[in-house]
Amino acid sequence: MDRDMKQMLESVRDGALSVDDALLRLKRQPFADIGFAKVDLHRKLRQGAAEVIYGAGKTPEQIIGILDVMRQNGQNTVLITRLSEEAARIVAQAHPIDYHRDARAAILGGFPEPDGLGTIVVATGGTSDIPVAEEAALTAQVLGNQVTRLYDVGVAGLHRTLAHLDEIMGASVIIAIAGMEGALASVIGGLADCPVIAVPTSVGYGASFQGLSALLSMLNSCASGVSVVNIDNGFGGGYQASMINHMERKGVKP
Amino acid sequence: MDRDMKQMLESVRDGALSVDDALLRLKRQPFADIGFAKVDLHRKLRQGAAEVIYGAGKTPEQIIGILDVMRQNGQNTVLITRLSEEAARIVAQAHPIDYHRDARAAILGGFPEPDGLGTIVVATGGTSDIPVAEEAALTAQVLGNQVTRLYDVGVAGLHRTLAHLDEIMGASVIIAIAGMEGALASVIGGLADCPVIAVPTSVGYGASFQGLSALLSMLNSCASGVSVVNIDNGFGGGYQASMINHMERKGVKP
Amino acid sequence: MDRDMKQMLESVRDGALSVDDALLRLKRQPFADIGFAKVDLHRKLRQGAAEVIYGAGKTPEQIIGILDVMRQNGQNTVLITRLSEEAARIVAQAHPIDYHRDARAAILGGFPEPDGLGTIVVATGGTSDIPVAEEAALTAQVLGNQVTRLYDVGVAGLHRTLAHLDEIMGASVIIAIAGMEGALASVIGGLADCPVIAVPTSVGYGASFQGLSALLSMLNSCASGVSVVNIDNGFGGGYQASMINHMERKGVKP
Amino acid sequence: MDRDMKQMLESVRDGALSVDDALLRLKRQPFADIGFAKVDLHRKLRQGAAEVIYGAGKTPEQIIGILDVMRQNGQNTVLITRLSEEAARIVAQAHPIDYHRDARAAILGGFPEPDGLGTIVVATGGTSDIPVAEEAALTAQVLGNQVTRLYDVGVAGLHRTLAHLDEIMGASVIIAIAGMEGALASVIGGLADCPVIAVPTSVGYGASFQGLSALLSMLNSCASGVSVVNIDNGFGGGYQASMINHMERKGVKP
Amino acid sequence: MDRDMKQMLESVRDGALSVDDALLRLKRQPFADIGFAKVDLHRKLRQGAAEVIYGAGKTPEQIIGILDVMRQNGQNTVLITRLSEEAARIVAQAHPIDYHRDARAAILGGFPEPDGLGTIVVATGGTSDIPVAEEAALTAQVLGNQVTRLYDVGVAGLHRTLAHLDEIMGASVIIAIAGMEGALASVIGGLADCPVIAVPTSVGYGASFQGLSALLSMLNSCASGVSVVNIDNGFGGGYQASMINHMERKGVKP
Amino acid sequence: MDRDMKQMLESVRDGALSVDDALLRLKRQPFADIGFAKVDLHRKLRQGAAEVIYGAGKTPEQIIGILDVMRQNGQNTVLITRLSEEAARIVAQAHPIDYHRDARAAILGGFPEPDGLGTIVVATGGTSDIPVAEEAALTAQVLGNQVTRLYDVGVAGLHRTLAHLDEIMGASVIIAIAGMEGALASVIGGLADCPVIAVPTSVGYGASFQGLSALLSMLNSCASGVSVVNIDNGFGGGYQASMINHMERKGVKP
Amino acid sequence: MDRDMKQMLESVRDGALSVDDALLRLKRQPFADIGFAKVDLHRKLRQGAAEVIYGAGKTPEQIIGILDVMRQNGQNTVLITRLSEEAARIVAQAHPIDYHRDARAAILGGFPEPDGLGTIVVATGGTSDIPVAEEAALTAQVLGNQVTRLYDVGVAGLHRTLAHLDEIMGASVIIAIAGMEGALASVIGGLADCPVIAVPTSVGYGASFQGLSALLSMLNSCASGVSVVNIDNGFGGGYQASMINHMERKGVKP
Amino acid sequence: MDRDMKQMLESVRDGALSVDDALLRLKRQPFADIGFAKVDLHRKLRQGAAEVIYGAGKTPEQIIGILDVMRQNGQNTVLITRLSEEAARIVAQAHPIDYHRDARAAILGGFPEPDGLGTIVVATGGTSDIPVAEEAALTAQVLGNQVTRLYDVGVAGLHRTLAHLDEIMGASVIIAIAGMEGALASVIGGLADCPVIAVPTSVGYGASFQGLSALLSMLNSCASGVSVVNIDNGFGGGYQASMINHMERKGVKP
Repeated sequence: MDRDMKQMLESVRDGALSVDDALLRLKRQPFADIGFAKVDLHRKLRQGAAEVIYGAGKTPEQIIGILDVMRQNGQNTVLITRLSEEAARIVAQAHPIDYHRDARAAILGGFPEPDGLGTIVVATGGTSDIPVAEEAALTAQVLGNQVTRLYDVGVAGLHRTLAHLDEIMGASVIIAIAGMEGALASVIGGLADCPVIAVPTSVGYGASFQGLSALLSMLNSCASGVSVVNIDNGFGGGYQASMINHMERKGVKP
Repeated sequence: MDRDMKQMLESVRDGALSVDDALLRLKRQPFADIGFAKVDLHRKLRQGAAEVIYGAGKTPEQIIGILDVMRQNGQNTVLITRLSEEAARIVAQAHPIDYHRDARAAILGGFPEPDGLGTIVVATGGTSDIPVAEEAALTAQVLGNQVTRLYDVGVAGLHRTLAHLDEIMGASVIIAIAGMEGALASVIGGLADCPVIAVPTSVGYGASFQGLSALLSMLNSCASGVSVVNIDNGFGGGYQASMINHMERKGVKP
Repeated sequence: MDRDMKQMLESVRDGALSVDDALLRLKRQPFADIGFAKVDLHRKLRQGAAEVIYGAGKTPEQIIGILDVMRQNGQNTVLITRLSEEAARIVAQAHPIDYHRDARAAILGGFPEPDGLGTIVVATGGTSDIPVAEEAALTAQVLGNQVTRLYDVGVAGLHRTLAHLDEIMGASVIIAIAGMEGALASVIGGLADCPVIAVPTSVGYGASFQGLSALLSMLNSCASGVSVVNIDNGFGGGYQASMINHMERKGVKP
Repeated sequence: MDRDMKQMLESVRDGALSVDDALLRLKRQPFADIGFAKVDLHRKLRQGAAEVIYGAGKTPEQIIGILDVMRQNGQNTVLITRLSEEAARIVAQAHPIDYHRDARAAILGGFPEPDGLGTIVVATGGTSDIPVAEEAALTAQVLGNQVTRLYDVGVAGLHRTLAHLDEIMGASVIIAIAGMEGALASVIGGLADCPVIAVPTSVGYGASFQGLSALLSMLNSCASGVSVVNIDNGFGGGYQASMINHMERKGVKP
Repeated sequence: MDRDMKQMLESVRDGALSVDDALLRLKRQPFADIGFAKVDLHRKLRQGAAEVIYGAGKTPEQIIGILDVMRQNGQNTVLITRLSEEAARIVAQAHPIDYHRDARAAILGGFPEPDGLGTIVVATGGTSDIPVAEEAALTAQVLGNQVTRLYDVGVAGLHRTLAHLDEIMGASVIIAIAGMEGALASVIGGLADCPVIAVPTSVGYGASFQGLSALLSMLNSCASGVSVVNIDNGFGGGYQASMINHMERKGVKP
Repeated sequence: MDRDMKQMLESVRDGALSVDDALLRLKRQPFADIGFAKVDLHRKLRQGAAEVIYGAGKTPEQIIGILDVMRQNGQNTVLITRLSEEAARIVAQAHPIDYHRDARAAILGGFPEPDGLGTIVVATGGTSDIPVAEEAALTAQVLGNQVTRLYDVGVAGLHRTLAHLDEIMGASVIIAIAGMEGALASVIGGLADCPVIAVPTSVGYGASFQGLSALLSMLNSCASGVSVVNIDNGFGGGYQASMINHMERKGVKP
Repeated sequence: MDRDMKQMLESVRDGALSVDDALLRLKRQPFADIGFAKVDLHRKLRQGAAEVIYGAGKTPEQIIGILDVMRQNGQNTVLITRLSEEAARIVAQAHPIDYHRDARAAILGGFPEPDGLGTIVVATGGTSDIPVAEEAALTAQVLGNQVTRLYDVGVAGLHRTLAHLDEIMGASVIIAIAGMEGALASVIGGLADCPVIAVPTSVGYGASFQGLSALLSMLNSCASGVSVVNIDNGFGGGYQASMINHMERKGVKP
Repeated sequence: MDRDMKQMLESVRDGALSVDDALLRLKRQPFADIGFAKVDLHRKLRQGAAEVIYGAGKTPEQIIGILDVMRQNGQNTVLITRLSEEAARIVAQAHPIDYHRDARAAILGGFPEPDGLGTIVVATGGTSDIPVAEEAALTAQVLGNQVTRLYDVGVAGLHRTLAHLDEIMGASVIIAIAGMEGALASVIGGLADCPVIAVPTSVGYGASFQGLSALLSMLNSCASGVSVVNIDNGFGGGYQASMINHMERKGVKP
C-alpha cells in the first residue's frame, strides 16, 4: 500500500497527477489503503506462523477452498476448530491434516517450536471439560507455546489440585477451564501468581444453565488476576494466553 | 388437645354425649384438634428450649407484644432475627434482650447448654459475609449447639482455608457461607466428610446479581453432600444444621 | 505415605539425609503426601461399602474399565447413575450389574444391610418425578439406608399427602422431589420435624422453565429445615440424606 | 350516541341531510360514536355502583379533581388504590373518604349491599401479604361482594390452612395471596372446587426475586382451576373474583 | 368413612372399645378418614360427567390401563390431552376414542349437553395458536359448555378482532390465546365485560423466548378482569372457564 | 363498503328502510364496514406490488392453496419466507417460484422496478448472518428497492467496514445485521447519517444466549438513529427499511 | 480538513514537501483528517439547526460550560435531556433556557420551523408514559418536525385509540410509547401504514420488570413496520422519527 | 516458616525430637506451614511495592487500623479502592493519603517508577465510564505501570477512536471500559495486537440491565485476544493488565 501512495505522491510531485485528483483518490479509500499494518490480524494468528479457521457452519468443501487459498499464499500451518470427524475425513482427502478428536480440531503443518516466555498450563475441573481444554491447548501449541495439561483437578478433590502446585506456581499463564460451579478459577487464581484466563464450559445440568453458573462464578472470582472468555471458548482462552506468553518490551522511541 | 378428645370419648362412653353429636364435632375440627403433635413447630424451635421471631416487617411494639405472650406461656429463650438496632433499643425497654449487632439479632434468656452430636462449624468466604454467618451461628447456639466460627477463609487464599483443616474435618455439620462466586461450598464440601449446608449471600457487585452467582455455584457444586438454602438465609442454615446435629435413632417398633 | 515420610525423618535422624535436602523434599510435595486421610472421598461413598460412577458422558467401555479397576481393588458394591439402557446392556456383558430402568442406574454387588438411624422417605409430587426419585432412593439404599417410597403425593391432592402422615412424621430424613411448582417441599417441611432435602425436577412445561420454578419455590420455602440440591439431582439428595441418617456423636478429645 | 345517529338518519329520511354528507359523517367518527356500550368500562367497576382510581403516580390534587368530576356526575362510591397516608390526609380535606391503612386504599361512600352468588374468600400465606390482601378484599367489597378473610394460613403450618376447610370448601371464589414460594395457591386449589385467583406478592428476599418465585409457582400449579394475576395486584384479583361472583345466565336469543 | 367412625363411637358408647384405643385410632388416621368429601377432585372434572388424563409422558399401554379402570368404575366420558397421533392409534385399538389432531387430544364417550350459563369464546391471535386453542375448546366442551371459536383475530389486523365484537361482548367467559406479543388479551379484555382467561403460547421466535414475552404481556395487561394460566396450558384455560361458566348461587344456611 | 353504506342511506332517504332498522344495521357492523381503508394491510406489502407468506409452520399444500387464491385475485408477486428447500420443491410443482437457498425464501413473479428514494444497504457482521440478511434483502427487493449487500464487514476487522464507507454514507437506509456482540449496529450508526434498522441474529454460542447478547447491544447502542427488530427477523428489517425508503410528503389539506 | 490536505498536496507538487514526509504525515492522521464529513454527527442533530446534550450524570456547571462553547461556536438551538428541575434552575441563571417539566428537558433558542415530510404522531398508552413521550416530542420538534400528541390512548380502552384513527392514518411516522404490556405498538402498527418507532417504558410494577415486558412485546409485535428503541428512550424515538420524516431522494450519479 | 521446619528437622537430626513426634507435627499443620511462598498474595500487589485495601463495607476506623498495621510492617505504598470522600477525609487525619475523587480511591505513598514492558492504555466509551477507568488506571500506576488514558472514544464516534490509532497499536496491554452496548472492546480488539482486558460498566439505563448488556457483548466479542472481568471491576482490569505488562521469561531448569 505504501508503494501505491508513494507513487501517487511522486506523480503529484512530478506534475503527472493534479492535486484535485490526488485529493479525490485519498478521500475515496482512506481506510483500506492508509497506514493499516494489521490486515485481518484478528484472524491471522502470528505472522508467518499459523492461521485459524473457525469450522462451525462451514461445509468441508468451503474449508478445502479456504485451505487451497491459504497454502497458495504460503501459509503452511493452519488450525481448524469446531470440525466434526466426518467433515475432517473429507477435508483430509484434499489436505494432509491431523485430526484431534478430543478437541474437535484439525491441524495442517504441525506445531512450531515453542518460543514463548514460559509454559502455559491448561487445567480442567473434570474430564467432561477436556474437549474445550484440548481446543485451548492445541491453539496455544499451534501458536508456539509449550503447554502442560492438568486435567480433572477440580476443587471437590482439592488434593488433586494441590498435587500440581509446582506446575501451577511455575506457569507463565494458566487457562482454568470448568463447568458446573466453576470454582477452579478462584482456587487456581488464589494459588498462582500469573495471569489466569478462565473458560467456563457448558458442562453440567439443571441449574448450571448451559454454563451460566460457571460464567458468573468466574466473573465474580474473589481472586485477583483472573479474566474470563465466553462459555466453551477454548480457542479464545488459548489465543489470549499465547499473546500474554509472547509479551515483549515495547519501547518508546527516543 | 388429647385431653379434650379423651373427655369427649369418655362422654360418649358414659352416655353424656350422643354418637351423632360426637361425630359432628369430630368432622368439624379435624385438623386443629386431632393428632397434631406439631403445633406451629416450624416456628417453634425445640420444645421447651427456644422460639424464634422473624423481626423483618414487624414494629418494636408488635415484637414486644409477641414476647409478652411467649413469656406468659413460660417461654424463656427467644431469638429475634432481622432486628434493627433502633428497634432492639425499644424492645429492650420492655424485655431483657441481648442485642448482637453483627447478626442483627437479639436473644432473650441466653444460650442453653449444647446437647448436639458434635460441633457446627460456621465458615465464611469473606468478612462481609459475617452478618449472615452470625445469624446462622446464633440460631445454632440458641438451639443447643456448640459452634466454631471460621470467618474470612475464602478460597482465593486457600492456605487460610487449609489452616483450619482440623476444624473442618472434625465438624459434625458445616455451614458454608459465601457471596461473590460461592466457591467456598465446593472446597469445603470436598474436604469435609460431614453434611454441608451452603448459604449464598448477596455480597458482591456487578455480575454477582445480588447473590444469584453464589446461589448457582452452590447448587452446581461438584462436591457431594452439599445442599443449599435461600440467599442470605443464615437462620435457615443454622436451623437445619441444628436438626442434623440432633439426629437420634428412630427405632421401628419391634 | 506415612511410611515414606517416616523413612525420610529416620534418614535425617541417622544423618543419611541433610536437613536442607529434607526441607526441599518437604516443600516440593506438601499436598500430595502429607496428612490427607481423604483420598477422593467425595467420590467414594462410605469406606468399604460403595462407590458411585457418574455415567453421563462416559462410554460403556470406559465404565467397564473403571469397574475393572474398582473390583481389582476390592470394591464390590458400585452404583452407576445416568446410564442408558443400551449402555447398561454392554456393561452387563463384562460385569454382573442389575439395571434399574426407572432410575436409569445400575448396581453392582447388591444393597448392604441398612445401618442408619432410621428410615429415609423419598416422596414425589407426581409420577413423572419417579426417575429422579429412584436415583435418590437407590443411592440411599446402596449407602446402607432403609428407604420408604411415597410417590405421587403432590399437594394438589392434599389428602394423598396427608394419608401418609405416619411415614412423614416417622421419617429420619425426607427427600421431597417435585417439578412444576415444587410446593411439596413446603408442605412436607411444615408437617415433618426432621431434615428435608428438596430436589426440584425439570418436570413441567412453559413457565416451569426446566425446573427453575420448582427450584425457586423450594429455596423460598417458608418451612424451616428444608435445603435444596440441583435440579434433577436425585443422587445429591440421596447422598446427603444418607450422610444425615448416619450421623454419629463426634466427641471432643478429653 | 344512539340519539345522535337516529337524528342523523331521520334527517336523511326527511331530506334534511344529503346521503353524501351522512356518509362522510359516519366515516369520520366510527369508533367514538357507534355502538359502544362500554365507555371506559375497564375503569368503571359496575354501572351505578362504584368507580376505582389507581392512585399511584397521581398527586392528591389530581385525585381531588377526579373525585370532583365523578361526584358531579353522580358517582358516590369510589375506591382509590395505592394511596399513601399523607396523600389520603390531603384528599380527606376535600372529600369524605375512609382510609384503610393496611390496604393503602381509601373509599368514598361506603360499601354497597353484597349481591353476589356467594362469598369470596381472601386467603394469605403470611401476615406480610396482608396489604395486597386488603386491596383485594376492599375491591371485592366495594363491588358488592361478601368477603371472608383467612390471613396467615400458609402451607408451612398446614393445620392452619386445614382449620379453615369449611370456609375454603364453601367459597364461591377464592383469592389466594402469597409471596415466597407461593405454594398456597396449589394447596387451596387442590382443596377447593371453585375458581381460584392467585396473586403472587413481592414478599420475601433473596431468591424470591421480588415475587418471581411465587409467580412461577402459581403459574405452574398442578391444581386445576387456578389462574394468576400480576405480582402484588390485589385489585386485579378482587376485580376478577367479583366478576366471577356476579356471573349470570347469558341467554341465546330464541 | 362416616360409617367407620360412627361404628367406632358406638363401640365406645357400648363399652366394646376403650377410650384409649379409640383415641389412638383417631390420631393415626386423621386425614385419610375424616371429613374429606373431595377425593382426587382436582383431576376429576365434574362428578358423573368427565375425567381427564394428561397424556404427556405416559405410554399408550399406561393410558389403556387407566381407561380400563375408569370405564370399569362407570366413567364413560374421558378427555386425554397431549396425546400423539401414534399413541392415539394404539389406544384406539382398545377403546373407542375420537382423536382430534389439532388439539393433540382424544375423547372417549362424546360431548355432554351444554349446561353452562352462556357461551365460552375461544379466541386466538394467529393460526399457529390453534393447537392450544383446540385443547382449551375441547376441554370446555367435554365439561358441558357451548364454545364459539374465533381464530386468527390478532390485534395487528384489528378489524378482524372488531368484526367479532358481537361474539366478544356476548360471551360468558373468554379464553384469549396468543403467542408473540400477547396483545390479544389486553384488547379483548378492554372490549369484553366478562372474565377473560389469558393463555400465552410458545408461538414465536427470537425474543419471544418460548412464550415468556406473551406471558409477561398478559400478566401486565392494563385491562381489568384478565387472569393468566401457564404457557400453552389450553386445558387450564378451558377448565377454569368452565368452572366460571357453571357458577351457582352458594347460599349461607339460614 | 362505501357502496353498501351509501345504498343503505339511500334506502333510508327513499323510505325503503326504516330509521330503526338502519340504526340496528349500523350498530352491528361498525368495524368491518366503516372507514377501513386498510384491509389486512399489515400482511399486504404494497398495493398491486407484492404479498408475503410467512412459511414457517405451513405445509407445502397450504402454501399452494394460498398461492392459488392470491393469483386468482390478480396478485402476481409473492414472497414466501422461512421456506425449507424440500417444501419449496413441492410448491414449485404447482407455481413457478424461484427459490433462494441462502434466504430460505421463494419468490413468485420476480422483482419489480426499484422506485424508492435511494439504496438500502444490507450489512452483516459475519458470513453466518447471511441467511437473515438475504431474507431482509429479498424483502426489500420484492418491495421495490435497490439493495446493496455488504456482507462480513464485522467490527473486529474494522478496515473491512471502513472500506465500504462510500456505500454506508451514501445509503438511504441501512439494515445492520449481526449476532454475537452486535457491535456492527453501533459502528454503522456512528458512521452513517441515515436511519439504521438493526437486526440481531442468533449466531453465536455460549453467552450469546441465542441472540440476546446482540439484541441488548443494539438496544443500548450509543449511536443515534438506530432502532431494532426481533432476533433473526430479516423480513421485519427489510419491510421497515422499504417503508422508510418510500416516504412521501403527506400534505395537510389546505 | 480538505484545505489542509490540499495544501499538503500542493506543497508536494511545488517541491516544498518531500514525498516521504507527506507519506509519513498521511499515515499518522488517517482518520481524524481524511474524508470525514461527519464530525460527531451522532451528537449533532441537524447541521445549523440543533444540538442535544444528554444531561444525566452532568453537573449544572458542566452543562453551562458546554453551552458556553456551543454558543461561542454559533449554535443557538440546544436540547438538554434528562435534566432535573434543580439543575435547570442553575443553568437558567447562565443561559436563557425554557424548562419542560414533563419531559425533564430544557430548550435553548426555541423550536425551528417544521420542515419534514409530514406529521409525527407521539402516542402513549397511559398518562404515566407522558415524561418519555414529551422527551420524544420535544426532540422531534427541536429537529424541525410538526408533532401531534395522542396521550392515554391505551388499548384497554380501544375506543380511545380508534377515536384518533384519522391522526394515526394520516401520520408520517408514529412513535408508540407504552409500559406494562406494551400492546399499543402492535395495535397502532396494525392500523397505520407508516413506520412505527416503539418506545417501551419502565411504567408498571411486578412482572413488568422495569420495562422488560413492554420491550419484549414490542420486539415480538405481529404488526409489520414496527421497530424498537431502548426502554424509556424518548430521545432515540424522536431522533429516528425525525430522520425518517426528513428522508430525501438520494440520487445515483448519472 | 522455613526456619521452624528447619529447626524441627535439626532437632530430629540431633536426636532432640523423636521421628514419631516430628511426623505428628508435620501432619497437623501441613498447609499453614509448608512451602507457601504466597501468603495472601492475592491481596498483596507486588512484593515491596504496593498493597491494596478494598474499601467498600469498611469503616474509616477499620481502614485506619489496617493502615496502621501495614505501615508498621514497612508497607509504604497502599491503594484504597471504593472509598467515599467522607471516609477519605477521616482516614486522611491519621495517614497522609491522596484522594482521587474520580476513581473513588486513595493512595498512600505515591506511585512507584514504572517498570513494565510498555504502556497500558485505559480507554473508555464515554465520560460516564471514567470512575471505573480511573480505578483501573490508578491500580496500574500504583503497581508500576506507565498509563495512557483515552477517554470518551466510544465507537459511535468512530473517528475519535481512530484518531488514537497510534496509542492503540503501540500499547502493551489495553483496558477497554464501556457500558451500554460495550462495543468498544470489539473495535479495539480488532485494531490492537496486544491483550485487551474488557471491563463492562453499569453505565446506561433500560435494557442495559446494570451492565449485563455490556458484559454479554464483551464476552461475545468477535475479536480475538479479549477477556473480560466483572462489571465495574476497574481494579481487576488494572491488576491483570499489570500482571501481563510485567511478564518475564520463566525458564525451565537446565
